Formats: sequence, C-alpha cells, structure tokens
Amino acid sequence: MSDLSVFSDPRSVAVVGASADPAKWGYWLARGALRGRERREVHLVNAHGSVIEGVSSVRSLDDLDTAPELVVLCAPARSVPAVVDQALAAGVKGFLGITAGLDHADDPGLERRLAERIRAAGARLVGPNCLGLYDASTQLSLAWGTFTPGSLAIVSQSGQLGLELAGLAAHAGLGVARFVSVGNQVDVTAAELLDDLVDHAETRAVVLYLESFQDGRALVGTLARLRAAGKPVVVLTVGASEASRAAARSHTGALTAATDVVAAACRAAGAVLAETPAQAIDLAHLLVGGPLPAGRRVAVVSDSGGQGALAADVLVRHGLVVPRLGDETRARLAALLPTAAAVANPVDLAGAGEQDLSTYHRVVDAIAGSGEVDTVVMSGYFGCYGADTPELEDRELEVVEDLAGVTRRHDRPVVVHSMSHDSAAVRSMRAQAVPTLHTIDAVARSLDLAAQLAAEPVAPLPSVAPATSAAVAGLAAGYLDGRTLLASYGVAYPDAAGVRSEEGVREAAGRLRGPFVLKAGWIEHKTEVGGVAVGLPDADAAVAAYADMRARLGEGEYVLEEMDRQDSVVELIVGARRDPSFGPVVLVGLGGVQAELHRDVQVALAPVDEARASEMVRSLRSFPLLDGWRGRPAVDVRSAARTVVALSRVLAERPDAVEAEVNPLRVGPAGATAVDALVVLAEHADPLPTHPGTASVPEPAELTGAVR
Amino acid sequence: MSDLSVFSDPRSVAVVGASADPAKWGYWLARGALRGRERREVHLVNAHGSVIEGVSSVRSLDDLDTAPELVVLCAPARSVPAVVDQALAAGVKGFLGITAGLDHADDPGLERRLAERIRAAGARLVGPNCLGLYDASTQLSLAWGTFTPGSLAIVSQSGQLGLELAGLAAHAGLGVARFVSVGNQVDVTAAELLDDLVDHAETRAVVLYLESFQDGRALVGTLARLRAAGKPVVVLTVGASEASRAAARSHTGALTAATDVVAAACRAAGAVLAETPAQAIDLAHLLVGGPLPAGRRVAVVSDSGGQGALAADVLVRHGLVVPRLGDETRARLAALLPTAAAVANPVDLAGAGEQDLSTYHRVVDAIAGSGEVDTVVMSGYFGCYGADTPELEDRELEVVEDLAGVTRRHDRPVVVHSMSHDSAAVRSMRAQAVPTLHTIDAVARSLDLAAQLAAEPVAPLPSVAPATSAAVAGLAAGYLDGRTLLASYGVAYPDAAGVRSEEGVREAAGRLRGPFVLKAGWIEHKTEVGGVAVGLPDADAAVAAYADMRARLGEGEYVLEEMDRQDSVVELIVGARRDPSFGPVVLVGLGGVQAELHRDVQVALAPVDEARASEMVRSLRSFPLLDGWRGRPAVDVRSAARTVVALSRVLAERPDAVEAEVNPLRVGPAGATAVDALVVLAEHADPLPTHPGTASVPEPAELTGAVR
Repeated sequence: MSDLSVFSDPRSVAVVGASADPAKWGYWLARGALRGRERREVHLVNAHGSVIEGVSSVRSLDDLDTAPELVVLCAPARSVPAVVDQALAAGVKGFLGITAGLDHADDPGLERRLAERIRAAGARLVGPNCLGLYDASTQLSLAWGTFTPGSLAIVSQSGQLGLELAGLAAHAGLGVARFVSVGNQVDVTAAELLDDLVDHAETRAVVLYLESFQDGRALVGTLARLRAAGKPVVVLTVGASEASRAAARSHTGALTAATDVVAAACRAAGAVLAETPAQAIDLAHLLVGGPLPAGRRVAVVSDSGGQGALAADVLVRHGLVVPRLGDETRARLAALLPTAAAVANPVDLAGAGEQDLSTYHRVVDAIAGSGEVDTVVMSGYFGCYGADTPELEDRELEVVEDLAGVTRRHDRPVVVHSMSHDSAAVRSMRAQAVPTLHTIDAVARSLDLAAQLAAEPVAPLPSVAPATSAAVAGLAAGYLDGRTLLASYGVAYPDAAGVRSEEGVREAAGRLRGPFVLKAGWIEHKTEVGGVAVGLPDADAAVAAYADMRARLGEGEYVLEEMDRQDSVVELIVGARRDPSFGPVVLVGLGGVQAELHRDVQVALAPVDEARASEMVRSLRSFPLLDGWRGRPAVDVRSAARTVVALSRVLAERPDAVEAEVNPLRVGPAGATAVDALVVLAEHADPLPTHPGTASVPEPAELTGAVR
Repeated sequence: MSDLSVFSDPRSVAVVGASADPAKWGYWLARGALRGRERREVHLVNAHGSVIEGVSSVRSLDDLDTAPELVVLCAPARSVPAVVDQALAAGVKGFLGITAGLDHADDPGLERRLAERIRAAGARLVGPNCLGLYDASTQLSLAWGTFTPGSLAIVSQSGQLGLELAGLAAHAGLGVARFVSVGNQVDVTAAELLDDLVDHAETRAVVLYLESFQDGRALVGTLARLRAAGKPVVVLTVGASEASRAAARSHTGALTAATDVVAAACRAAGAVLAETPAQAIDLAHLLVGGPLPAGRRVAVVSDSGGQGALAADVLVRHGLVVPRLGDETRARLAALLPTAAAVANPVDLAGAGEQDLSTYHRVVDAIAGSGEVDTVVMSGYFGCYGADTPELEDRELEVVEDLAGVTRRHDRPVVVHSMSHDSAAVRSMRAQAVPTLHTIDAVARSLDLAAQLAAEPVAPLPSVAPATSAAVAGLAAGYLDGRTLLASYGVAYPDAAGVRSEEGVREAAGRLRGPFVLKAGWIEHKTEVGGVAVGLPDADAAVAAYADMRARLGEGEYVLEEMDRQDSVVELIVGARRDPSFGPVVLVGLGGVQAELHRDVQVALAPVDEARASEMVRSLRSFPLLDGWRGRPAVDVRSAARTVVALSRVLAERPDAVEAEVNPLRVGPAGATAVDALVVLAEHADPLPTHPGTASVPEPAELTGAVR
C-alpha cells in the first residue's frame, strides 16, 4: 500500500485558485488551509495576487521558493492541466482535485490522462470533483464546510452527502477525526483511503458512502481489516429503488438487487449497511465508544410508564427482544423502587429517579449485572435535570459518571434516549461512551444495526476463480447437462434418463421407479409451454406423454425422471450468479410466492460454507415453515444448506459459470431433492449442449452420476 | 358538550401547593401561572406563606377575598380532599389535579369519589396525576416544562410523553397552541378535551397519545370532527409488542393486535397512527400549514446527485413513487439546467442552484406545474446558503418566498430536506408552510403517513347494535348452524346436509352432487382431530368415511357437503370480533402462512360497505396473488368483499355475536365459497345448538337456505 500521508498531514500546502470571495470554493479552501498554519507552510495562489483573509497570495506556483508537498486544485478547469505540469515539475507529491468538469472541457478523457501523468511522476491525486479533506489531529482543513473534531471518519463518493454526514454528526454531538471526499477516484481510490484509516489512531468508526464498487472483493478485505482493527464501518449506498435489476435469466437475478449484494458484502466484511445518513450517524454513537451489544436482549428503564411502554414497542418492532426479567432481578429492583414501580421490563421508576437521582444508576447497574440482557436502554427525562433545574446539575453529572462505570464494569452498553438534545449531562454521557440519542427511534434502529454488526464474525473471504471475460452473458445448458453439473457439486436429483424416442421412454421407464415426470429438457421455462408432465404412473403413461409433448414441441432431449414423492415438503429456491462488482453471490429463499411477493430471500457472497448456508436458511422470515410449522415435521435444513453450498461453489470455482439455479428445491424431513436445474455458462466456454441437435460433449472427468 | 373554557382561559387561578423550591412541581406551576398575570388574577397558596418568584403567597384558599375560577392542585396527596371541599364551598369551577397517588393514600377509591363531589357541585376536574395545561393564546402555562407558542395541540395520557412531544416540536421549530396532560381522566376525558379543540382557532393539527380507549366509537367521532374542521389528528399508542392478544378462539383474534384495531379506528376517523413521538412531530410539519399531498407520486430535486439518489431510494422504501418525468417536463427542466444535470427524477441541479439561487424555485415550479407528481421534495444544501455565506442570505430568503408561492399556486406541498437544522431560511420556510425537515428519513416517513391521511375519506361511522352484556365470551355454534347464520348474511356455502346415521349419509349423498366432504360439525378445530374427510367420490365412500369417523369421534352432528372444486383458487381468512374498546371489527387476510407468518391482514371497524371491503382486499400485500399472478386468472374480488361485508354485519347487527370467522374462504374466478364457519355467540343468548344432543332450534325467519 502506498503512503498517502501527503493527504492527511502534508508538510506544506498550496491552494491554487484561492479566492477572497466567500461565495467561491477557493475562499473556503484558502480559509481552511490557513487554519493549519501553525503546523505547516500554507501558500495561496490567486491569478490576481489578492489578499485573502489578511494573507497575501502569489500569482503562480512558480513564484514559490520551494515546492509545496500538496497542491489543492480549485482553479478553473481550463487552467488545471498547466498547474499540474508546473507542480509536477517542481516536485509536488500530492494533488487534491476540487475542480469539477475537467472532462467537460475541450478535452474528453483529460481526467484519466492527468492522473496518469501524476502517477508517472510518482505523485498521487485525490479527486478531482471532490469536496476536500479534513483531518482533526493534523489541523488539516481543506474542504468546504466546517468540522467538529472527534473520532468518526467519513469517506464519501458524494462530497455533499459526506458534508451532510459531518453536519448530522456535529448536530448530535459527534465529531469527525478524518473526512475524505473521494470525488471521481481517477487515481487514489476509496479503498486506498479506507486502508489508510486502519492505523489512524484517532478514528474509532467509519461511515462510508459509495455509489460504485469497482473491485468489490478487495473492498471487502479493507472493511474487514478496519473491523479487525476495532473500527467498524457503516456503509451507505444507493440503487435500492432502481427498477433495473441485473439483466439475468434466472429468478435469482430478479431477487438480488444491487443493495442486497452490498448488504451481503457488508456481512462478509463485518461491516453493516445503513439506509440513510441519519441512521449511520445515530449508529455511530454506539460504535465510537463503548462495547457492542452481544445480542438483541434489551431492558428498558424509564421515568415514565408511557415512554417505557412506547420504547418497548419500538424496540420490538426493530427486531429486538424485551424479555421479562427474572425473579431475582425483579426482587432486587423492587427493593430499590417504590411499590408503584414496574420491575418486569420495561422498568418504570415511578418517580424514584426524581426523588433520588442515584436511583437511575442503581437500577441500571442491577439490570446490567444480572446478565439477563445485552443492553440497558434508559428512556425519558434523564439528561434534563440540570438543564431545567440548575441546582441539580452537579448531582446529575455524578450519576453520569456512575452510568459510565456500569458500562465498563459489565462490558455491555447503556444507551440513553434523553428528552434533552444537548445539555451538560448529555454531553458528558457522550464523552464517556454512554451513547445518548434524542429519539427512541434512533436508539431502536441503532441497536438493531449494532446487533447485526456484532453478530457478524470477521472471517477471511474465500478466494474465487476469476471469471472468463465472457462470463457476463451466456447460454443455458440443457436440463440433463445442468443437473449433471449441479449433481457433481453435490446437489441431489432423482434418478433420470435422457430419452429421444418412444422406445427410449419405455426402456428408461423399465429401469427407473414410477411414477415419472417427463420434461422437455432443452426448454428453459418448461412449465409455461407445457413442457413438464408429472404424475405419470407407468411406462404407458410416460410414452403417451412423450408422444403428446413431441407432437407439440418437436424433437429434442426429453428427460424421464423419477417423481419426488416426499411428504411435508417446503419448496426453496437456491441460486447463484456473478455480480459485476462483488463476483459470485448465492441466494436462498422460499419458493414461489414467499420469495417473490415478500422478497423473503437471503443473499451472501459465494462461496459459503455449510455453517453460513444454514444461517442463511435460518434467517429467512419464513423459516418457521421449515421448523415444524403447526405440527408438521421439521425439514432437513442441513441438506438445504448443502445445496446452497453447492451452488455457491459452482459460481466460485467455475470461471465460465454465469448463473445457476435450482427452483424448486423440495426439502422434506428426509432431505432435499432438486427437481429443476438452470445453468447458464459463458458463450464460447465449455460447449455443453444447449439445444437439440448440438452433439453431446464428453462429460468432464469429475462429473459423476446421478444420471444413469 | 360541557364548557371547558375554565381549563383554557380561566379568569383567575390559584396554585395550591405553590413552592419556592425549583426542584418541586409547585415551583413550576407557580412560575408558569404568574406568566399569565397580565390576563388573569393569579394566587399562590403555600402552607408557609412563602414568597415565590417575588410574589407573596397565602396560607389557605380561605385567605382569598374571592374564589378563583380554577384551582391547581399540587399540594401533598393527604391535603387534597380538604382543599377540594374548601374550593367547592367557595364556588371554584375547575380543578387541575397535578398531585399523583391520591388512591395510594389511606383511602382507596378516593379519586373517583372526589370527582363525583366535584361534578355534583357543577365543577370539573382535569387529572389528577397530570402534568398540566398550556394554552399559548391565553398565556395559560400551568405545567412542568416550557413551551414554544405555535399551532400544534398536544393531548397526552402520559404527561412526560406529552412533554417529549412538545420538546421535539420546539427543537424542530414547531410550536404548541395547546397542551393538555389528561392524567387519570376520572372526570374530564381526553375525548372531551379533544372536542374542545374543534373550535380552537389557533390549533391546526393535533397529536394525541392514549394508552386506553374507554369509548372508542365516540372517540372516532371526535377525531372525525377534528379532521372535518381541518385539524388532522396524529395518534400514538402502545401495546404493539404485547404478547397478550385478545383472548379469542378464532385466528381473527390472534391476528388483530390492539394497535391494529387502533389503526383501523384512525382510518375510520380520518386520523393516522404514528409509531413514535418523533414520527408524529415530523408529520405535524406537513399538517400545520400547506395542503396534504393528493397521492404518493414524488419528484426529488437535489443539488447533489448522491443525495437525490438516496432520497429516491428512501422514498420508495416508504411506499412512495418516484416516477420518471414526462418528455415535456424534462425538456422544460433541461432548458433551465446545465447539460450535466439529471432531469428525469430525481432531478440533479448539477451546480445550477449554486450559480443562481432562483434555479431552485424555477425547477420546483416547473415540476409542480406539470401535475405529474403530488409532492416536490427538495433535498440537500438549500437552507445553508445564508448560514455559510451571509452575503447570500437575502437572496436565499427571496427564493423561500418564491417556493412558498409554488405551494399556493399549484396547491401541492413542497417539502424540504435541508442540511441546516435551523437557519433564517429554514425558519422562514417553516413559517410559510414549506415543511422543512432535517433528515430525508423524516421527509419520507411523513409523506407516507400524510398520503395515508389524505387517502382516508371522512365518512360518518355506521352505528352498531350494542353488545349483550355477556358478549365477551361465548360458545361456538356447530358448523351447520354457524354456516346457516353466515349464509343468512350472504356468505356462499356449498350445498350440505346434517347427517346422523349411515342411512342419512346415503340419503344425503343421493340429493347432493359428489365429490363430497364429511365434517364432524360440532368440533371446533375439526381438521386437527381428523374430523374432516375430503374428496369422497360417491355415496359408498361417504358412508365409509362416516363409519370411520363415528368410530373415532362418537355421535354428533356430522355434515355431508358438496366439495368445492373451483380451480385457480386463492384462500382467504375473513373474520370479525368484538374489540373491548372499539366494538365490532372485521379482518381479511390471505389464508394460512401469508396471514400468520407475514401478518398480511387488513382490519377495519365493522360494519363496512362493499367499497371499503374491496379496498381492504386490494390493500393486502399479497393482493397480486388475487389479481392474475403469473398468468393465472384473476379471482372474483367482489365476492370476497361481499363476504367481508357479511361478517362485519354479523358482529355489527347481532348483539349476541362474539366472533365469526370463515377460514378458508376459497375465492376463484367465478366467485367465493366458504368451506368453514366459526360463530361464537354469547352464553345465555340465542340458544343455537352448540354441541351434539342439543335440540335444533327453529331457524330464524330471515335465515334462508344454502342448507337443504
């Protein structure tokens, strides 16, 4: 990894395009740069040599005695190439490209060529078209906007969205350690700038906004390194509402939106995907200080019955659990509280907090010490005492110290929803790693995301075979070849035989066990054209079905298959495809209506192991259907998981695989049986037969046979 | 309706229990009361005659020359009864009961008895155990906390939650017209205090928090009156997470949580249910000023591509629609914007706003004027110009005026997400009915709720027969009687006959058309005990099934029924029950897994007409299944709706009806057929036979016959 320190702590900076007009970017960059003058040399370059914020500027970089280490480009687009050349000649090491629209000048492709020149000279470029950089500990403020120092890093592909994140953080009492607007990334990438945060001592958590993911797998590695370094990453992206799903042939394609894949990548990286800047910043409060919650169990402590009940509702709506506290804990709480208090959870102090502020701490301590919950949420008036009644401020601040002690002692978070947005007590809580938020919505949403984050172990991502260059579109293999391929990876199919004549059908029916299913194997969506006949009891029925189907659909590779007759079956869809950014992904969902209407699917980066695949199946909202629904027997989840593993391996191991899908996979108490196969291979890759008339190719040596 | 003006604009007030200690409630009440001294006489009563905020107090109400109109009770609980008696003797008209725990004194039931004494004397009591009252226009401030004047009314059963609402409103630049903490409602109820807001000129919208709904139907009437007066109500309640569903025998019971019924009541009242105080206050921004959106179509205008795309995602996630703008509108926008701008929706100004602030207004005006969307959302930097660059403030404020003009001219809301939480421009927008929120989350959530609100027509609630006193639990009617009752309300059943012997079965099979279903009619959950045999092709099979079932289950009223053989059927559950607060409610959902696993049900107050019932069916998430799913024929939604109407009428019209359910209702292209019936009637009511051996009662005259 190259040294990017010129972008976080340059020894000297020149702002080219500095301006005295407060409505111009050049003014903000100049003003910000000047703030670092105690730490570094700052030069302002202005075509007119104006005085800016009381500082004289030079007319050109050439007027400087020594070359600055970092040059900020906020001059007009047309002048940028000459400035870069001048700077490179002088030995500048880094460029921060603020100026936008370089490519809109006379010269298309200029951005990339500039980047190449810069790299060739051993220098680096952040941007162009970015909003700037900020680093709190080095007094580097080369950006539009103002920043509050703190422990959050913000890396954003949209400068203004990055600024919104910084603003929301500041509004909520959370400061920024480093801010990077990555702009067009023609040289330095977001991934490099993220890697540069791994060892940045001041950064405790990262919020990342990206719209495109060039090398998704490498980014996953970076995010995982940040997590391992104790700096969890909250990811924001867009594209969830795009009608444009991947142009795929399988249902898997329609069911895996771009953001689903990003979410899967986050899980693989030990990062978490949030939906909005506000969600990300709310969550960041829980990440910069204290421990993550170990699970989803929450106790609510409130000084108002209404607020406590409402908090419990909202937490449960966000997937958290508000368990009734045990006998011993209830007894301990009852001893601390008046008889009117509720002690089961939510706990209502019933005025005891008001009588004696230390009640807050003592109740929270008793609950946290019980081990019965992973998080204690305080909701209500605490944080307002000192603000409303100055006489109480010192006492309230003492209790804050005690609450911070609870978190440390029991290594589990105490999260506060305070009716005060900002008070001495609220600020003190935030400073002492007691995350304090202004709405219960924010608390619930953040605990949900934090629990997701805590549940993700950080494991190294398995490597995958690089896709053939053609593996973006392809041809579907015939059913028989498709199932042979999937079977070779361990997918279980009923016995079957390819048949091309009535005699062939009769002969196959003699070897297989009825009842039978007859399929027009070369047709991709067989059912819709009457290409599947089920429940054929014997050879005569199979022959008749063949005669009928052949008359309608013509010659081709028909397949006679034993009909799966397992009872108490749940149908799943299992699929895998190649995502353009993140490579192979695998999906499992309930078949038919459940997956498509309720989007009840789970997506992961491929390959997955059996443990991860089982977890995917168990995470389906419809999982209760598989687990003994209304007295029916539970189905064999492990065999379903093994099928997920198999399809994930097909995509991860075969460079020519574009898509693979089993829909449906019939999972019963005794195991899982696949009764369809869709395998799409890259054109010009392994020439598996894809339509009737194509000669069969020899089976690959490793393919062995469910087909006899 | 009684005159409650003593609680909003009393001519004189005495605070009994006034205190000089800022940590005591009596201090806040006294300080607040004194703020109204220009408008009314204010007396402070303190046992020690202390000087409070520079004002002398008296030791007792008796020390006053004339009786105050309103007495604030914040004296210790034990002294309250004597104070009330003293006050009533002096002719006091109103009491505001702050003091809590009256019933915890020696004297249980004291609260109710005090209320009775007060009413008997022609006076009224708000509370006790409340946090107080505030009315901005009459300078009445008799509450803990401080309030910002404005146009929102807050009525809350939890005082502190009410205070949280007021605090969130103030934090977001929204003031309060009236605040009422209703406390224990032993005399004046929330419904009365709400009714008192109908003619309160300063109130433009209401936020209501209630934990209990004593006379739910009357409250619906009050909320509808407020809506009709142009003051929409946002309702908050708790109980969504309670495991304790209504203790009902039908699935309907398990599927209608308390909050589902409150949501149904809100729809009937033209009010809307929010989940949290923050949601309610965010939404209130859209209700206090400009028009409601007429629908869910939204255009996004942003000065950042990232923020615009993210806004679109979040809006779509909240059920809003971000349609591509038409050719003409896109051309008009393109003419206003640089070539790099996006004009399809989301619209990205691509720096044009920065170049010329009036671009914001001109783009928004062009879109609002197109009629292609119901709301224009501006997301991003606007609102920050003046704050960051004072030179731009005047210009920004002019654009705000223009934006307000767009809303008026096109009668559709312009909602702003501004990165500034509070600036001159933001305040000006709020003042001019351009709702301005600090997060895109809040914008999206509020537009979703506002669209719900706008979609609800305010129709008078049909009256229902009062339930018999016993109609809280009851006995299930046998299947034959149940289906006879439901059929009399228009539910379609297959032909059937009661059978009690093998000869009876054979005779019935001769009259009915096979195949048949045999049911053990007196058993409530027949399937689970093998009390249903389906697909019986002929009389012999029916007799055999009868013999088998009788051997296992014994004597009883068996029913032989024609088997419904419609194809392409979707199974629904339709049910009705009696809610303790809101009376009869009706439910429709997808049968089986869809309803129970995904809670895909719709609930309404009963009775409903066919239009409302159709809308319920069409609002199911699974409705696509009924509407020609994957090439299947669409089913007969009207006949399903008529079944919903029928069950809603059973509960609304029959005082003895406790629950009624059809599960499943088989709905196909040719109509809906019920194949089960569960009717629970109050014990000791109409003695319909409920178990074998009970003699059949004569059929009511109006019951006619699907059963022959």
